[in-house]
Amino acid sequence: MEEQGLPSLLITNLTNIFYLTGFRGSAGAAVFTRREGVLWVDPRYTLQAHEQAHHVEVLEEKKGVYKAAAVWLASRRLGPTGYEAAHLSCADFARLEQAAGPGAQYVATAGLAERVRAAKDEGEIARIRSAGRITARAFTKVLDRLQPGVSEVDLAAEIDWLMRRAGAEGAAFETIVASGPRAALPHARPSPKLLKQKEFVIFDLGAILDGYVADMSRTVYFGKPSRRVRSIYNAVAEAQERGIKAALPGVRCGEIDALGRRSLAGHGLARFFTHSTGHGVGMEPHELPRLARGEKARLEANQVVTVEPGVYFEGWGGIRVEDTILVTSAGAEVLTPAPKDRWTVE
Amino acid sequence: MEEQGLPSLLITNLTNIFYLTGFRGSAGAAVFTRREGVLWVDPRYTLQAHEQAHHVEVLEEKKGVYKAAAVWLASRRLGPTGYEAAHLSCADFARLEQAAGPGAQYVATAGLAERVRAAKDEGEIARIRSAGRITARAFTKVLDRLQPGVSEVDLAAEIDWLMRRAGAEGAAFETIVASGPRAALPHARPSPKLLKQKEFVIFDLGAILDGYVADMSRTVYFGKPSRRVRSIYNAVAEAQERGIKAALPGVRCGEIDALGRRSLAGHGLARFFTHSTGHGVGMEPHELPRLARGEKARLEANQVVTVEPGVYFEGWGGIRVEDTILVTSAGAEVLTPAPKDRWTVE
Repeated sequence: MEEQGLPSLLITNLTNIFYLTGFRGSAGAAVFTRREGVLWVDPRYTLQAHEQAHHVEVLEEKKGVYKAAAVWLASRRLGPTGYEAAHLSCADFARLEQAAGPGAQYVATAGLAERVRAAKDEGEIARIRSAGRITARAFTKVLDRLQPGVSEVDLAAEIDWLMRRAGAEGAAFETIVASGPRAALPHARPSPKLLKQKEFVIFDLGAILDGYVADMSRTVYFGKPSRRVRSIYNAVAEAQERGIKAALPGVRCGEIDALGRRSLAGHGLARFFTHSTGHGVGMEPHELPRLARGEKARLEANQVVTVEPGVYFEGWGGIRVEDTILVTSAGAEVLTPAPKDRWTVE
Repeated sequence: MEEQGLPSLLITNLTNIFYLTGFRGSAGAAVFTRREGVLWVDPRYTLQAHEQAHHVEVLEEKKGVYKAAAVWLASRRLGPTGYEAAHLSCADFARLEQAAGPGAQYVATAGLAERVRAAKDEGEIARIRSAGRITARAFTKVLDRLQPGVSEVDLAAEIDWLMRRAGAEGAAFETIVASGPRAALPHARPSPKLLKQKEFVIFDLGAILDGYVADMSRTVYFGKPSRRVRSIYNAVAEAQERGIKAALPGVRCGEIDALGRRSLAGHGLARFFTHSTGHGVGMEPHELPRLARGEKARLEANQVVTVEPGVYFEGWGGIRVEDTILVTSAGAEVLTPAPKDRWTVE
C-alpha cells in the first residue's frame, strides 16, 4: 500500500482474505487502512469469521459485503482506495461504485497481496511440507501396487482417498492420471481408459492441508523400455534435476526455465516442452513467482515453487517430472519426496 | 440476444461456454452473433476444442482470448456487444476495451445464458438422473455401515471414493459430513471430529457426471431419539415432503419457500430455518431458479431444483433433508432416491 501511495485497500480475492485475516469462507470483503482492518461477512459466516479472523474487526452484513465496504470507506474519506482488478467482476464493481457515491475514487491494483504471499513464513512452510509428504506417500503407495488393467479414474479416486485418509482436506486440484496418447495432453482429465503395456502414464497430484497445497508429477512406463523411451525419460529427469539444483535465491526465474530448455535441447527434445518450467505453490496450486520464459523476477529464499519440465508427443504419450521445492540459500529442499528412479513397472 | 436487441454477445463464463458450445476447458471466450459462433482457446486446448465444440468455429489464440474476441468483433462492426458482467473481471474488461478500440460499445448483461440453462432437455435430465442415482447409492452404502467412532473426514473421503468408483467424475462440491454442534453450521467442512451417540449428523453430497451434478442432504441420529428429537426431524421431513409435492409448473418459486416456512412454523421451528428452500441444479450445484423468499419467477416443466429445508440450533446441532427433483406437470420426480425414513442408527 505504501509503495503505491494508497491510503486504503479493498481485498475481494478470497485466498488473499484468508492470507491476510485467517478467515476462510466462500464470501467476504476486507478493507485495510494504515491503521486498521475490517472484514465483512454474511450471516452464514459470522460465527466462523469471529473464530478464524485475527487483527481485523469482523462485521456482519446482510445486504452485500462489497456495498458495505464501499459505504464504510466513503464515510472515512481516506482518499483513493486500491482494489483487486483481477478479482472483482464488472457487475460487483458497478455495485461498489454506486454504493460509494460520486466522491469516491477507486484505483486498480494487480498482484499486491499475491507478491507478499510468494515468500513463505515458517508456519506456511511446515504446512506445505506436510501436504508434500502426504502427496508423495499417496503416490508411492499407488506405485507399490501399480499394474496394467486398472483404469485412470480408479487410480485417481484411489489417490484422492489415500490423501484424505492421511489427513488432507482433499486434492488441491483434479488429480491427473493420463496414460498412452492421453499423456500427451498436459491437462488431461482421468478417463475410464485402462492402463496398458508399452505406455507412459503421467500422475499429477497434490494434497491440500490446513489451506496449503503441494504439487507433484511422476511418470511411469509399463514394460521394458526401449532405448529411445529410456533416453527420453532420462532427459526429462535430468532437466528437472538441473532446475532444482539451480533454484537458489537471486537466480532469475527465467533462467531456471531456460536451463531446462537447454538441457532438453541437448537431446533434441526442446520443441516438445510446450509449457513453463514451474510456478509458486502455497494457498493455491498456482501462485507467484512464475518460472517461465523471460521472467526477470529473481527467486527469493523461502519461496516455494515447482520445477516440472515435460515433453509431449501427440498421439503417442508424454513424460513430466515435477516436485514442489523450497528455495533456500543452502539449496533447494524437495517437499514432495517420492521416488523418481522407480519409473518402470514390469 | 433478440430480447435485448443485441447483435452480438461475448460469453466469458466457462460453464456457459460449455453449455453453448460443448467445450469444457479452463480458459476460453466465445462470441455469438445472429449468424455464427466463434470460440477462442489457447494452444493447450486447441485439440480438445476441436473434439468437443459444435456449431462454432474454433480459433487458436496465443495472446489472450478476450483480446482476440474484441479484435474480431471490432472488425465485424456489428454494433453493441453484450458481455457477462458477473463473469468478467475489471482487469479483463480493461484489456478488452483497449483491444476493442474507441468505436466499440459493450453492454453489461446479467444471467442471459443462465436463464436458458434453467430448463433442461432430455439429455441433460438423463445425466442429472444418473448423477442423482450415484449420489443416493453412495449415501445408502455409507448408511448401511454407519456407526459412532468414525470421523467426519473419513466418511467424506469414503463417500467421494464411492461416487468416483460408481463412475462420477468426482464430488460436485466439498462433501459435508457435520455432526453434533458442527451440524449447526450450514456450511461446515468435514473435520476430524468423531461421530458419537446422541448427536445428529448432516450429510450433504452430490456427484458430478458428464458435467452435470446432483445435490442431496440426509440427516442421521445416533441412538434412541427423544420425543423432542423425533418431532424436530419429522417436522423438517414433513416440510420437505410438502415442498416436493407443491413443486409444479406455474407455481411461484417464492411460494414453495413460503410453504416450507409455514410448515415449520406450525412446529415453532420457523426461526431456525436460516437459509432458502432450494435452487436450480444442472451444470453447477447452484443455478437458477432460486426457491427463496419473495421470488416471483414461476417453476417450469423440466427445471431441476433442490428442496432442502433445514433447522439449526447453535451449539447443539442441525437437521436438513434435501433432494434434487425434476419438475413435471405430473408432479416432481425425486432424482436422489435415498431413504429418508431410516434416520436413526442404534
